[in-house]
Amino acid sequence: MPVDQTHDPALRSWVASANAQGTDFPIQNLPFGRFRPAGAASAWRIGVAIGDRVLDLEAARGHGRWDAEAAAALDSVAGGDLRPLMALGPRPRRALRAALSHALAEGSAQRDALAPCLLPQSGVELTVPCAIGDYTDFYTGIHHATSVGRLFRPDNPLLPNYQWVPIGYHGRSSSIVASGHPIRRPLGQTKAADAAQPTFGPSRRLDCELELGFLIGQGNALGEPVPVGEAEEHLFGVTLFNDWSARDIQPWEYQPLGPFLSKNFGSTISPWVVTMEALAPFRAPLQRPAGSPEPLPYLDSVETRASGALDIRMEISLQTAAMREAGLPAVRISGASAAQAAYWTAAQLVAHHTSGGCNLQPGDLFGSGTLSGPAPDQAGSLLELTQGGKQPIRLPNGESRTFLEDGDTLGLRGWCERPGARRIGFGPCAGTIVPARRGESRDES
Amino acid sequence: MPVDQTHDPALRSWVASANAQGTDFPIQNLPFGRFRPAGAASAWRIGVAIGDRVLDLEAARGHGRWDAEAAAALDSVAGGDLRPLMALGPRPRRALRAALSHALAEGSAQRDALAPCLLPQSGVELTVPCAIGDYTDFYTGIHHATSVGRLFRPDNPLLPNYQWVPIGYHGRSSSIVASGHPIRRPLGQTKAADAAQPTFGPSRRLDCELELGFLIGQGNALGEPVPVGEAEEHLFGVTLFNDWSARDIQPWEYQPLGPFLSKNFGSTISPWVVTMEALAPFRAPLQRPAGSPEPLPYLDSVETRASGALDIRMEISLQTAAMREAGLPAVRISGASAAQAAYWTAAQLVAHHTSGGCNLQPGDLFGSGTLSGPAPDQAGSLLELTQGGKQPIRLPNGESRTFLEDGDTLGLRGWCERPGARRIGFGPCAGTIVPARRGESRDES
Repeated sequence: MPVDQTHDPALRSWVASANAQGTDFPIQNLPFGRFRPAGAASAWRIGVAIGDRVLDLEAARGHGRWDAEAAAALDSVAGGDLRPLMALGPRPRRALRAALSHALAEGSAQRDALAPCLLPQSGVELTVPCAIGDYTDFYTGIHHATSVGRLFRPDNPLLPNYQWVPIGYHGRSSSIVASGHPIRRPLGQTKAADAAQPTFGPSRRLDCELELGFLIGQGNALGEPVPVGEAEEHLFGVTLFNDWSARDIQPWEYQPLGPFLSKNFGSTISPWVVTMEALAPFRAPLQRPAGSPEPLPYLDSVETRASGALDIRMEISLQTAAMREAGLPAVRISGASAAQAAYWTAAQLVAHHTSGGCNLQPGDLFGSGTLSGPAPDQAGSLLELTQGGKQPIRLPNGESRTFLEDGDTLGLRGWCERPGARRIGFGPCAGTIVPARRGESRDES
Repeated sequence: MPVDQTHDPALRSWVASANAQGTDFPIQNLPFGRFRPAGAASAWRIGVAIGDRVLDLEAARGHGRWDAEAAAALDSVAGGDLRPLMALGPRPRRALRAALSHALAEGSAQRDALAPCLLPQSGVELTVPCAIGDYTDFYTGIHHATSVGRLFRPDNPLLPNYQWVPIGYHGRSSSIVASGHPIRRPLGQTKAADAAQPTFGPSRRLDCELELGFLIGQGNALGEPVPVGEAEEHLFGVTLFNDWSARDIQPWEYQPLGPFLSKNFGSTISPWVVTMEALAPFRAPLQRPAGSPEPLPYLDSVETRASGALDIRMEISLQTAAMREAGLPAVRISGASAAQAAYWTAAQLVAHHTSGGCNLQPGDLFGSGTLSGPAPDQAGSLLELTQGGKQPIRLPNGESRTFLEDGDTLGLRGWCERPGARRIGFGPCAGTIVPARRGESRDES
């Protein structure tokens, strides 16, 4: 994929904070999000993150000077919805990126016009980047599938279909929330192996899942599959994604139709969408374990093999209530590389999802599935990190965790860095566990 | 549930066709739908079916006289979206029903004002009744679960969780289409038991599933379960629903996360939503096989036991291309009673779905799961009717079927009838299979 001047690592912005070492949002990134002034109940607006600021795109449309293609892209988001821009496909988005890069660069003649369109990120509230129509969660993390499988089937951890079918299932869109939204511990049915019948009560094995989210740009018509070679044109951008999971509800409910209430009580998405354009310098060859079969032709292309993977570094951090009260920062408990973890590329997911004719729509979300690295300390879930709850994680203040407790704040981080490229990041993706709701008419176990 | 005067079987309408024997849409029904003039690309409008006519509610709002509550309900649908009315909950909907019943009844002083607001159904196009946010498919048909389970596990057909957990999984909303929309045979991966690897090509075991659809009215907030005793207040109405299924794609893909592409290539919904109010005379006690355990308290209420089931008769019909060419009508191939088939009530599904905190939104759809009666000829799928494809169905023209062939039109019917009540029906829910799309770059098996 060609690297255009918007990626030039020497490029600096007149927004000073965008030039700071370690910022997630240098001028090379320019992710999209939905914001409003904090505490206001006003309508959501579309913005672009730059350093510690948000550029209000509706204001920028009015104050700046834009070429026709960029202006059309700006017009599309004037209603506060990102989906019209998503629906336009990659070309107007690239034009807008080029125009914003130019306008926000050091020395731009638009500085005085656009400076009033910047708001401090500390003063805005962010939400899910768009109304998500359908959400599909995949299972691309082969090390995750293997290590979870090993907990159940030590001799045969990976099911026979795994290396042929991009395994996925439909998830719940309504309960996807943006970083910062509390996550209430779910109630649910669980059944101990030796119990005669199930009981109903708060989940005791509440877990996270370290995932990427892929947001769909332009859709496809029902009945018209997207060939793998065109699939990248249907991707808008990437987020972090935490598919919170109740590991004790899941085994009792999931046969024969898959996980349901163990997953749908909440999922957390990072509110800034890093576009496919921003990720262009961080593409990588598809890596697969030796002996993996060749993909079937409908899932195979030269491009997806050569550069279909995304070189995104990811981390999980934890801060307990006691740590927070003691003023201790969150600690890193795991981390993995998406390129090492994922058996399928995003383009392969698009091709597979549509191969039977299913239609994708702008703003649909794909979860990557849990991205665990090959080493045990690179696992993307507590289930794996603690060997199914048997090996607690020791925290610096003397506490330990198998699964999440009330008051725990679990955060995901993601960033890209490579020699010759400016580091970009995804911003926060965190949630704090709040206690289960107790109903009077319920039988608590 | 009290039966109000809108159900009086003696009530007649000044719309003559609504009084015809056998109409699905007498004045006692009054289902909601979205329509536009056939062939026009104009905006969708909300209407109510009455006999062979549609009452345009936006026109009726302007031409008729309405009490304040009914007028507010009419105002809510003026934008052509049913969800604002759904969101209002049952009270305004009941007020609108009473007002429409009064206005359309024989002798109404509103006849002259409203007659111009009627369009012939033959001249309109119908679509899905609302933009469906999230769609969940349940598995409430215990005879279906048992007979499908028997195909795989003759000695232990029903899994241990079935009688405790209302089994469900998330489905694909984008590919739900209204009756009449063609269904393209999906391509997909299949693997023969003795094959070394899978192949990709058109499904050869394309099936239907006889289901009811429950549309959600008012929603609930994330983290706030709906108690089973309040769950009926969150139901808007009922449709027919055909969850087309590719039985050869399903077994290869569905472990461990459930059915995916075997289901998401298309689902057909009947476009008229029969409201919970119209169904009030057709409630029935929950029927369960002897020896079934008591539901856990969060799924149990006096009301759901006494009248939680719906006495809806359902049928599957088939017309092949050869039958159509020979002028032969569709033939009934199966039929079942929803009240006999469903192990869980709709209220129990709402209570279970929200029990972990998942939020429902107006316009969300629940599928009942395949509703098969207790006898083999009452099965709700070809998989069951043909014993997994081993016992073909003989058709009157000498053809036979195991699974669906290109050109087949499969239709569902549903109606309610009881002594002392006027029969009401659901209208059509049919789709015709069109051949799979063949891509040049694909490996067809």
